[in-house]
Parts: sequence; C-alpha cells; structure tokens
Amino acid sequence: MQAVWLENQKIQVREIKKPERTNEALIRVRRAGICSTDLELIKGYYPYSGVLGHEFVGEVVTAPDPSWVGQRVVGEINAACGTCKTCRAGRPTHCENRTVLGIVNRDGVFAEYTTLPLENLHRVPNTVSDEAAVFTEPLAAALEIQQQVHIKPTDNVLLVGAGRLGQLIAQTLVLTGCNLRVMARHAHQKNLLKAGGMDIITENELQPGQWDVVVEATGSADGFALARRAVRPRGTVVLKSTYKGDVLVNFSSMVVDEITILGSRCGPFEPALRLLESGEVDPTVLIAADYEMKKAIEALEHASSPGALKILLHT
Amino acid sequence: MQAVWLENQKIQVREIKKPERTNEALIRVRRAGICSTDLELIKGYYPYSGVLGHEFVGEVVTAPDPSWVGQRVVGEINAACGTCKTCRAGRPTHCENRTVLGIVNRDGVFAEYTTLPLENLHRVPNTVSDEAAVFTEPLAAALEIQQQVHIKPTDNVLLVGAGRLGQLIAQTLVLTGCNLRVMARHAHQKNLLKAGGMDIITENELQPGQWDVVVEATGSADGFALARRAVRPRGTVVLKSTYKGDVLVNFSSMVVDEITILGSRCGPFEPALRLLESGEVDPTVLIAADYEMKKAIEALEHASSPGALKILLHT
Repeated sequence: MQAVWLENQKIQVREIKKPERTNEALIRVRRAGICSTDLELIKGYYPYSGVLGHEFVGEVVTAPDPSWVGQRVVGEINAACGTCKTCRAGRPTHCENRTVLGIVNRDGVFAEYTTLPLENLHRVPNTVSDEAAVFTEPLAAALEIQQQVHIKPTDNVLLVGAGRLGQLIAQTLVLTGCNLRVMARHAHQKNLLKAGGMDIITENELQPGQWDVVVEATGSADGFALARRAVRPRGTVVLKSTYKGDVLVNFSSMVVDEITILGSRCGPFEPALRLLESGEVDPTVLIAADYEMKKAIEALEHASSPGALKILLHT
Repeated sequence: MQAVWLENQKIQVREIKKPERTNEALIRVRRAGICSTDLELIKGYYPYSGVLGHEFVGEVVTAPDPSWVGQRVVGEINAACGTCKTCRAGRPTHCENRTVLGIVNRDGVFAEYTTLPLENLHRVPNTVSDEAAVFTEPLAAALEIQQQVHIKPTDNVLLVGAGRLGQLIAQTLVLTGCNLRVMARHAHQKNLLKAGGMDIITENELQPGQWDVVVEATGSADGFALARRAVRPRGTVVLKSTYKGDVLVNFSSMVVDEITILGSRCGPFEPALRLLESGEVDPTVLIAADYEMKKAIEALEHASSPGALKILLHT
C-alpha cells in the first residue's frame, strides 16, 4: 500500500506492506489531517521512524470483533497496555508502555490502511461528514482544557495563537460563555474567528495581570512570556502546544502571584463527537486544502507555510 | 524604640521613632521569627528599606476599636486596599496596592512596636503560647498548599526540603493521611521529622514519575529538577519557596505529561490557629534559639547557617 514514510528526518511517499495485527482492527483511511506535531516530527524534535499521521477517519475492514466491520470510525492515538500502574489508575493516555499512532513506535495514518486496538475506536455518527470527523482528535485535544480546568462563564479567557489547534480551542472555549479574546497573527485567522463571532485582541490592547485563564497555543517562548504577563494572580496558564527547547521561567514571581502553569495534551473523543454531531463546533471552516496521499510531500509543505490551517489527505 | 533596620543590604539595630498610624492598631511585639525571606531581603533579592520581619505575636496597645486593646494577636502580613479589582474579587493577599509587613513599603516586626490594620489581626487563643503563636504566619503559608491543591488521603506526596518552612509543611501534610515522604539534607532535620513520626526518603530511593503531588521547598533549580522527575503524569508540583533567578523548564515534556506547576505563598490564619490550639501541629520543636532584639545581627547570622531551623527574637 501507499504510505507517507519518515526516516532520519526524510519524508517520502512509498509502497509498504499492508499492516497485519490480528488483535487489532484494520482500518481503511478515508481522510487524514496534518497536525503541527507531524511537521515537528519531520524537523526531528522527537525521534520517530515509520508512517506519519494520527488524525483520521476511516472504515473498519477487519476486526477481532466482527460487529465493527464496515463501521466508520475515528481513533484515540494512545494505545495503552491496560495493566501498568498508570492505566490502572485511569490515565491510559499516559500509559507507561504506550505506543502512539504515528508518533511513538506505531505506524500512523498517512497511508491506505492503519491498525488500532478496538478500545481506541469510536463510531462516527451518520450525520457527521468525513471532513468534520477527521477533526475529532484535535477537537478532543482542545476539550482537554475544559477537562483539566474549570472554565467559568464569568471568566476572562485569553487565547494566544489561532492556528489549526487554536481555532478549535476558540470554537470550544466560546461555548462556555466565558469572555474570550483571541490573539491571532494572520489576517485569515482573524477573519475566521470574526466570522465565528469571536473577538480579537491585539498585544497593545492587552491589560496585564487581568486574565483568569490564558491558553498558550503558539509554542514559542514569546507566546509564553505574553501569557505570563496577561494572567492574573492565582490565574492559570495552559500550555497547549509543543515547545522547542527549554523556556526560562521566573519561579519567584510565580510564587508571589500564585500562578498555575498546566500542560495539556490529548483529550476525550466522545464529547468531541457530540459537539460535531450537534453542530456546535464546525471545524470544516479550517480546511485549506485536501490532497491526494501521493501528493503528501506537497501537502506537508503547504501545511508548513506560515499561518496555514488544516490540510487534509485522502487516498 | 529599638528596631532592626535594613537599608542598601546593610542591617543594623538602631533607635527609630515609635510608629504612629491612628487608623491602625499599635502592637507591642512579644516574639518575632526569622524567615528565609528576611535573609533574602538582606541579600537584596528584592529591594526593601525599613524595619525587617513579618512573623510575630504581640499585644495591642492602642487601636481605632478599643475592644482590641490588651488582646494578644498575630497579624496577616498583606495590608490590602479593599477597593481594587483583586480585593473585590476576594483575593486581598494579591491586592494591587498592597503593602507587606517588613517586605513591601511597610515597616516590619523586628522592633519593639509595629502597626497593622485591625482587619489583619487575629486573636490568639489563651492556650496557645507565644512560642507557638509566632509560627502562625508560616504555618498559614504551609496550609496554603491544602487551600490550593486537593491532597487526597490516598495520594503519594513528596516534600523536597525540610528547612524551617518545610518542617511546618510536613507537619500539616501528614494530617491529611497521605503517604508522605520527605527529602531532608541535614541530620537534625531528619531527626525532627522522625521524632514526629514522618518518613524520610533519599534521592536514590526515589522512583521517578510516581508521586501525585510534589512540594518543592528548597528554592533551588536542583530541587525543582528533582521534583519534576518525581511527579507522575497529571501530577502537581507546588513551588513553596523563593528562587534565585529564572529556572529552565522543559515545557514540551510538561505538555506530554500534563504536569501542573503551582506557585504558593501566604495562607489562611484561622486554620493555622485552630491547629495550634488543638495541638495537632507543634511548631515549637523547630525553635533553635531565642535572641534579644539587640542581638538581632547575631540571630540573623545564626538563621543563615546551613540547615538552621527557627530563630526567634524578643524585646
């Protein structure tokens, strides 16, 4: 089958053997989405060799439980052992022995077929299109913020960064009724937010120390510095990105102001699917292009261009 | 009156005018305690000129409300304006216009007399000695951890550092029923913990990524690195000290492991007084020496010696 293969920071579309794992579902990929993590893996921020990609919607071809065959599914990316202390404590996304789809020791979804354990799969409601369902994984990651932090309807919430994940975060945060302001760099990001009824704020308009919750979605030290300045005493800064290298943090001022900094990663799939089904979130407005898998190199370059939103792949 | 005066990182015991603030209580200081923050102010980590000291127990001499006169009191150190946005939001210890006893724009308690607004004062129960009551402020700071973080009886909690604040933190954490282990550097710190029925752990015995909550009370980058290694995925590191300079933090691993880092400062006085009154906490075991105010320079040197616990001053 055709697959997008990463090795030694080199990416190529090539023929590989169709995956075979009898204890997992074999899934034909219908749509896949390119995420910043994919681009960072190519840059070598984490070591990984294999098929790239972890955002997908597909159709089950074979499965240990035949009732899954023919189902349209999305899949959680962390394949957990189920037996380690962390799994038993109810935190399978942090399983000590996990493999991660297209990220850690598990071939991903930029391919004709992929495999996942049945417990990772979620059926996609009929009314949710492939183009929407392919966003389930990043939408779940956005919802992980509300899973971790109690966002109150009266909170002043600042979102720094409005890229492909930032836009989904904005779409979910606004549902809480909070007073949300978004800092966006690119005109088309701002236009998309405005079209969704969301409010933009510029760095000059930003009052320091006034925001209850600040979500940092730029992955830059500058973005964090801005988030730290903006958050109020006893407020929370959520880190919702990947950061290059270490960041210098003034711990003493964090103690004086009693600030919380919180890392946030993968989130819950079922709420994401519910918001897609109810139409409360429409991620399809983020789609910038949809490439054939064989043009994946071109698609990845497009996704790397400044401010690019969601690039899809299909077989 | 006699007072311990700090100016340009020089400390001296000298005669100054007795304070006069008609809208505040005038308090004769009975006992004062030396805190690491005092030593750091002398080193110039924060700019401050004036009378040093913020831990005290005293007796009200004059007050706008005469019912306070003659009362034995302890006092919260943040004098708040009561009208700013932060005060009105119920966070007076973070008041935007606050002065802080012996720390920010307000003469402290290493003196015969000090003043504080009545709303900062708490009556000391008769059964609580001066030697215990003088610990109310740091004991309240220790309790701020439980005010911020839900410590569950089933939690594995690691405390890094067992100095004068660390010992109080240990004494309050153990009350939660949690599985507490303490890393201490000095033999007398360990002995004090063992005498209190607490369990010591060494760096070699420490399992990485297994601790639900880690309290970092050393104020060093090494202490933080150890705390970060020890905390489990989705666990919390509480910063409970002052840090020299900025600390390098790997944000990407914080995101992957969904770690929370939380700054923690001043805490609630009434619960601290309740624990002193009930005898659940006995801070007097920390007292290493009790100096006359005129020997404050000697007392501060003693407090600066490695591993020194609580040094008191009296007039």
